Amino acid sequence: MKIAGRAYRTIWPVGDTAVEVIDQTRLPHALATVRLASAEDSGRAIREMVVRGAPLIGATAAYGMALAMGSDASDDNLERTHEMLLATRPTAVNLQWALDRMRAQLRNRPREERAALAWQEAAAICDEDVETCRRIGEHGLVILREAAARKKKGEPLNVLTHCNAGWLACVDWGTALAPIYMAHDSGVPLHVWVDETRPRNQGASLTAFELGGHGVPHTIIADNAGGYYMQSGAVDLCIVGTDRVAANGDVANKIGTYLKALAARDNDVPFHVALPGSTIDWTIASGQEIPIEERSSDELLTISGRLADGSVTRVEIGAPGSPAANPAFDVTPARLVTGLITERGMCSASREGLRSLFPEQAGQTQEKT
Amino acid sequence: MKIAGRAYRTIWPVGDTAVEVIDQTRLPHALATVRLASAEDSGRAIREMVVRGAPLIGATAAYGMALAMGSDASDDNLERTHEMLLATRPTAVNLQWALDRMRAQLRNRPREERAALAWQEAAAICDEDVETCRRIGEHGLVILREAAARKKKGEPLNVLTHCNAGWLACVDWGTALAPIYMAHDSGVPLHVWVDETRPRNQGASLTAFELGGHGVPHTIIADNAGGYYMQSGAVDLCIVGTDRVAANGDVANKIGTYLKALAARDNDVPFHVALPGSTIDWTIASGQEIPIEERSSDELLTISGRLADGSVTRVEIGAPGSPAANPAFDVTPARLVTGLITERGMCSASREGLRSLFPEQAGQTQEKT
Repeated sequence: MKIAGRAYRTIWPVGDTAVEVIDQTRLPHALATVRLASAEDSGRAIREMVVRGAPLIGATAAYGMALAMGSDASDDNLERTHEMLLATRPTAVNLQWALDRMRAQLRNRPREERAALAWQEAAAICDEDVETCRRIGEHGLVILREAAARKKKGEPLNVLTHCNAGWLACVDWGTALAPIYMAHDSGVPLHVWVDETRPRNQGASLTAFELGGHGVPHTIIADNAGGYYMQSGAVDLCIVGTDRVAANGDVANKIGTYLKALAARDNDVPFHVALPGSTIDWTIASGQEIPIEERSSDELLTISGRLADGSVTRVEIGAPGSPAANPAFDVTPARLVTGLITERGMCSASREGLRSLFPEQAGQTQEKT
Repeated sequence: MKIAGRAYRTIWPVGDTAVEVIDQTRLPHALATVRLASAEDSGRAIREMVVRGAPLIGATAAYGMALAMGSDASDDNLERTHEMLLATRPTAVNLQWALDRMRAQLRNRPREERAALAWQEAAAICDEDVETCRRIGEHGLVILREAAARKKKGEPLNVLTHCNAGWLACVDWGTALAPIYMAHDSGVPLHVWVDETRPRNQGASLTAFELGGHGVPHTIIADNAGGYYMQSGAVDLCIVGTDRVAANGDVANKIGTYLKALAARDNDVPFHVALPGSTIDWTIASGQEIPIEERSSDELLTISGRLADGSVTRVEIGAPGSPAANPAFDVTPARLVTGLITERGMCSASREGLRSLFPEQAGQTQEKT
């Protein structure tokens, strides 16, 4: 998508020795790129959330494998890099999916071919992600058009989203935001309520930055405010992304998603989850098995912001000496999800719904259920 | 309650020409007091949230009336000051309650007696608030003791609270926190999950400051995290305060309270609301009639914090150019409230429950229902 008129992806190769990514830790205060020249660089970028969002984490890990093969294409290094990158973040299943795909592609090939193959495969993962997101956008657009048709003439469709499941979380387009970009571009009047998304503020920082860059009307709200706006009739539907979907349709997403799903149910507001098929973890029977990452309390107790002179600084905001806890995700039970929007179309958040769209995966779930 | 071993109230008279208050806009970074020497000072302190919390707003307004009578005890000034102070904040009903009580006490008295009477009445309002909170604490303690008795030996009782309904919101003790202080002081092992409470962060700033000052174990969490902890079985009960209770038991409280009540219901966690009788608005049939204050978007888009050198600065945190909206309260429907804890004991959040504790008020509600 575009920032100030220039088209970007979130990650791109620089020859065959490095990749560049947008440094998301510096948004929205500054637009800067970071060069990753090794698998270790890729791992650090994922761990420190220079890149984040399940699909982009997968893409960055894939390029990490390519960078590793460029320096040492041995079986040992293939396994070591897979293991090192897999350990960077625990919740997003795309990370494992991308790493497994890279390893499967490289494992039985001669060492001298591995680097070139790895670069090709990582690029393919990126291009496929863009196409996947585009299709999610097309399927989600149908829902937005239908909802918009029910609005009074001249009234915009009000969509609420949590965290950032936009193009900055993917390679391009985004998952939850892809339908919103398509609706906006095709003239559907809409307005997005952007949850701030504490503690890392991905909504206020990234989603608002994205939507503003693309010209989509939006308003930042405290995470606390979404229920009030739903009670007030000011939210027509919710769309969020997800970091992992269990085989029964339970959805792990950024902490706080569950609260919005409860409010949506209590106010008869449709609650949709947009995802690529790679986010479905067929080996996990229910959301209770999804590991929830506990992150540093510093993310809650300190915050970065712009001073009056435009420089960026970090300040401490909590009561001095008070401890904090920071779980990064929660699980929204399938019963609260109106529907899943995938690259293959819509389905219910259920074992049956998921299998209807991904029948080739049915065998995998049966092993565990 | 105490800060660093010294006992404080939130407001106290200085002779009969001024009152002093703790400046809550500077907490938790600095403990400072502000002197209010006129009704206008009182109004500004309420409007700018130097003082906040429904009972403390009422007390500050009462002293504002006393300050006004000291300079001009005319009927005109009585009415003008009542009107000016009433307009400072729209949601808390205690403001109107305190102002009406002051006016009723002064209206039919000779001008030369009004100032002295006003100082007495404001002091009485403060002392009564302390006694009211102490009683709320005693009634709530029963609930906490019962819940603690159901815990395994050695496991602390986990209580979640939202915003600040502690002694900083009142004159002393607090409403929601009074039972917690009493339980802690009487040896009930407990731990408090403190919702950060965006956008003004009263939880991370004030509740954590209070609890830390008194030595109560607590952990600050993002507002987004409460649902996750309830799903995980890590919350035994919730207690919050309220700014206004409708005659049917609907509860207006800090924005985001409704989301926690939904999560509590979904996870069978008791959800209690602590309040003085003065917070009940018998003239309002349901929560839908409670006006919800819309505050400045700056509260969401900027934040104050401590720099490494200990100085305090304000930084901008949102995407540049993105607008924000900031509703300050939401309404939790009575159906989600397990019980109300008042100075007269517990009751259900219902018309019948409220009337059973406050039978003398029944007439007032009948007018409107």
